[in-house]
Parts: sequence; structure tokens; C-alpha cells
Amino acid sequence: MLREKALNKIALTSVIGLFVMSVVPARALQKTPPEPREAQEIRRVLDRQVEAWNRRDLEGFMQGYWHSPELTFYSGGTVVSGWETTLERYRNRYQGEGHEMGRLDFSDLKIELLGPGAAFVRGRFHLKMSRDEAGGLFTLTFRKFSDGWKIIHDHTSTS
Amino acid sequence: MLREKALNKIALTSVIGLFVMSVVPARALQKTPPEPREAQEIRRVLDRQVEAWNRRDLEGFMQGYWHSPELTFYSGGTVVSGWETTLERYRNRYQGEGHEMGRLDFSDLKIELLGPGAAFVRGRFHLKMSRDEAGGLFTLTFRKFSDGWKIIHDHTSTS
Repeated sequence: MLREKALNKIALTSVIGLFVMSVVPARALQKTPPEPREAQEIRRVLDRQVEAWNRRDLEGFMQGYWHSPELTFYSGGTVVSGWETTLERYRNRYQGEGHEMGRLDFSDLKIELLGPGAAFVRGRFHLKMSRDEAGGLFTLTFRKFSDGWKIIHDHTSTS
Repeated sequence: MLREKALNKIALTSVIGLFVMSVVPARALQKTPPEPREAQEIRRVLDRQVEAWNRRDLEGFMQGYWHSPELTFYSGGTVVSGWETTLERYRNRYQGEGHEMGRLDFSDLKIELLGPGAAFVRGRFHLKMSRDEAGGLFTLTFRKFSDGWKIIHDHTSTS
């Protein structure tokens, strides 16, 4: 009886073993579910923003933002409204006398769709300047327009 | 000929006058378009949060947040994840030794729907303590669940 149980156990282990062997490789090939098309499109907008920043092209960077007076940019306790004013803020802060743009990168990006034409992105930014570093968190609200996904609201806070 | 023109002008002015008189009162009664039902529901969630805070009921305040480990709270450069950890942060910050909760109010609220079950809210918070004041901006992402609208992400920054 005991021997029979032991044999059953071995048989069961083999069955589990075969099952695991047949399932695991398929899982390993597909570690994470493929990102939805919309999330890929939004990721490309952010990639293009980083590329533009790193070639010191602020107008190119601003292409990721909704070209509207209704665009909002929150930073600390300050509200900036409108595309032009946001560009001006970036110019004063990063291209003004004694300022440098540094090298930008984004990390910990979480892109979440909220509807057929809306999404929000959580992430971290990091700016490496020649003598200094800066960084912090951002939350971006995106809407899809006829010319693609655009940030309609940016909330940024520094570490 | 001149007199005829003048008479026509008077007649036209009267017609415009009558038109304005008949249209303006209706407009005056309905100054802004009525807020969509979803926005009203979200506003109530925020009202209840303020009421809970001002009676020092942090658990009540936290009812506005998604009760999930996936809730995120961004503040400065710090990420807090999960409902329990967010409550703990509030407890340490506002009910810990030598801290006070103060009187909370929200202003400049902009509630915007992003899909049938999603919205985001921009606003300003103000905390009046016995000897001090604090304030800043927030961006909240809301999703609608079976038990109502809940904040799934909070990004707060102080002035």
C-alpha cells in the first residue's frame, strides 16, 4: 500500500513535470503581454520628446504637447496655462543665461489607457547636467487628436 | 431717403432689442452648462474627503481612494504604492507626534471626463494649521468601480 502510494506520487510528479515542461517554454517566450497599440503610440511620443530634448530642440520637444491655450502644466505650486507659455517656461528655465538643458531620460513608465482616446502616464525623469543632476516624477494626461496622441496636462514634481 | 434710413435703423434696433430681451433672460438663468452627472458624482467624492479630513477622520478621507495595492501616490520625488501605505503616510504626516491635520479646502477644481469610466481632476489644496499654512496642486486620476468613483492615482506637489 505504501509502495503503491509512492509509485503514484512518482507518476503524478512526472505528469506535473511534463506539464510544466510543455507550458514553461511558451511562457518564457512571451514574458509580458504585448503592449496595446495605443500604448506603443504614446511611448513613441515620449521617445521623440527625449530625442528632441537631447538635441536641444525645445520646439520639437513641445510637439508632444497639445497646441492649445487649454494645455496645463503644474509644477510645485505653479500653474502654467497654454502651449506658448509652457514653451516660454522651458526656454527661460533651460536655455536662459547660465542654464543648460542637460541629458534627459525617462524611467519607470506606466502607460494606462482610460478610454478609446485617453490615457495617463506615470513616470520618472532624470536630467544629467555637466555639474549637476535633477529629477523627479511626472503624471501626464494624454488625449488622442487627429494628429496623434498629445499631452493635455502635465504635473511634474522634483525630488 | 435719409429719414427712411433712420426709420429703418430704429426698426432694426427694436427688432434686435426684442431679440436680446427674449434671449438674455433664458441665458441668465443658465449661466454655465449643467455639470455632467459623472462630474457631480466625482465632486461629491471630493466633498466627502474634505468633510472627513476636517473631522480628523483619515479612514473616511481614504474612502475616496481605490482600496488596492495598485493605488499610487506621487509627491515630490517620492512614490507611495498601495492604499494601506498611503493611509500610513497620512497618519505619520498629519497625526504623528507634534503634527496637526489643520483645516482642508480644495479650490480651482477642474473635473474632466476621459471615457465612460474614467476622469481626471486638477485642483489646488489649502491647509490651514493653527500656526502655519500649507498648499499646493494636485492631479487625480479617477476610475469608476462598482462602489463608485475612486482615485487610482494622486500626484501632489507643494508650493
